[in-house]
Amino acid sequence: MLLGALEGGGTKMVCAIGEEDGSIIDRITIPTRSPDETMPHIIDYFKEKMACALGIGFFGPLDLNPSSGTFGHLTATNKQDWQNYDVMGVLKNALNVPCRIDTDVNAAALGEAAYGCMRKLKNGIYITVGTGIGVGVIANGSVVHGMVHPEGGHVIVRRHPDDDFPGDCIFHKDCLEGLAAGPAIAARMHCKGQDLPADSPVWEWVSYYLAQAICDYIYILSPEKIVLGGGVMQQTQLYPMIRKHVLELLNGYVESDQIRDIDHYIVPATLNDNQAVMGCLKLAYDAALLS
Amino acid sequence: MLLGALEGGGTKMVCAIGEEDGSIIDRITIPTRSPDETMPHIIDYFKEKMACALGIGFFGPLDLNPSSGTFGHLTATNKQDWQNYDVMGVLKNALNVPCRIDTDVNAAALGEAAYGCMRKLKNGIYITVGTGIGVGVIANGSVVHGMVHPEGGHVIVRRHPDDDFPGDCIFHKDCLEGLAAGPAIAARMHCKGQDLPADSPVWEWVSYYLAQAICDYIYILSPEKIVLGGGVMQQTQLYPMIRKHVLELLNGYVESDQIRDIDHYIVPATLNDNQAVMGCLKLAYDAALLS
Repeated sequence: MLLGALEGGGTKMVCAIGEEDGSIIDRITIPTRSPDETMPHIIDYFKEKMACALGIGFFGPLDLNPSSGTFGHLTATNKQDWQNYDVMGVLKNALNVPCRIDTDVNAAALGEAAYGCMRKLKNGIYITVGTGIGVGVIANGSVVHGMVHPEGGHVIVRRHPDDDFPGDCIFHKDCLEGLAAGPAIAARMHCKGQDLPADSPVWEWVSYYLAQAICDYIYILSPEKIVLGGGVMQQTQLYPMIRKHVLELLNGYVESDQIRDIDHYIVPATLNDNQAVMGCLKLAYDAALLS
Repeated sequence: MLLGALEGGGTKMVCAIGEEDGSIIDRITIPTRSPDETMPHIIDYFKEKMACALGIGFFGPLDLNPSSGTFGHLTATNKQDWQNYDVMGVLKNALNVPCRIDTDVNAAALGEAAYGCMRKLKNGIYITVGTGIGVGVIANGSVVHGMVHPEGGHVIVRRHPDDDFPGDCIFHKDCLEGLAAGPAIAARMHCKGQDLPADSPVWEWVSYYLAQAICDYIYILSPEKIVLGGGVMQQTQLYPMIRKHVLELLNGYVESDQIRDIDHYIVPATLNDNQAVMGCLKLAYDAALLS
């Protein structure tokens, strides 16, 4: 059974073919332009490869309410061309195969839950720190959708006393995303994060903010594993800094074997940046099973 | 089928008999003393009433890991007499009926989910604000247990600029519970919350802290309803204040029919303070069904 996976991001679309064990057989990458320029390439690829089902992990905000008339549409994205675009309907009609759609970060969480380090866990958190901060939540064995979809990147954090950057979230200014995502790092330091030294003070601030958010996720959901991905988390010096701040902030309050072994509790994504594509394969497999 | 419900609190034990629709037929209240003084009364009550199953909602911290050798025991509670007490085992052995146990706040969340205003919802939050702050989380249709159990009362909040109380959480000082629970209100104002006027500045601070926590719960879980109970929430002036702060803090970021109708989104508990007892009836019913 050849499964199709579409990881639809703001700058590129990854189309892949794989199998139900998460193995990827083939992939292409297409730059994200307007729907008219981009979608035909995607459709041609999956037709040619004869995918028998498609899993879609797409940038948002998406309407994921199954009872809504605009289920599977983009909603108020700041990408003008894509506003209200019917991602799911267009692909389903063109390919005529079972499809499932979720947000890109939920797809990544699902990938880690199905094939990666959250396998067999009922509760876990996947955090991507890149141009934005997204959080995929696994609770009671399934991805959480809820009222809209979780937006855990916007939690409220306390300011680090040495950090005077006002924050750049257009809704909240200095929420987690406004202080710790890639653009906030770049705006603060006047250069990209990847060009900063590992001992730049910004990593202390970023790790402090991420640690606060992780403590809140621990208090609220008691996840069995916390997995981090995205461009900013390629700064590997962040992991020990985040773990240290988390332990200091919890201050002994939450006791468990997992917290005592924190190096294996707060971890980098394990699927070589394929977590979202592999989550899409899982979505495709579920779509095929239920069709 | 007569079901038994035990709501075990730090100051009193409520024992009740009821039915699977949540109706309560009889109840008694026993002051919480040492296990040796308290448990025989509880056991006598349920024996005499011939409960065919028992649901237990107990103060914590409890070991709720089903694969643990001390499942259903209290762990490191600050009530010396009760430390490591085998609540579940003692009751199960004495009564010889199917039993289920959860935390008191999870039982209250379950009560609202089974019989109250969270009926038919897949995702919801129950917050009790009293001598502590407890949070029961319903996600994907079930109560979340997770690694240990959620402790959403300890989330990190920003200080209100006019509030100089240092906070009294013994682990975190000025986390939500350390700033907004009953003892923090009393310590700050040198009198009990119930004796303060409705326009005391403390309600502005408490509502600001609770609103921040609620925003974090919304960001992380996207619940379809947020229900508040406990002694502090009998100050009904808090509800409009909390809703106003939540809308200001979200600042238009999360849009949904529920948020637009916030008076029916952030609400008082609907079961006349019987939510935990009724949740215990649901636990008893589930225990009977699975036995």
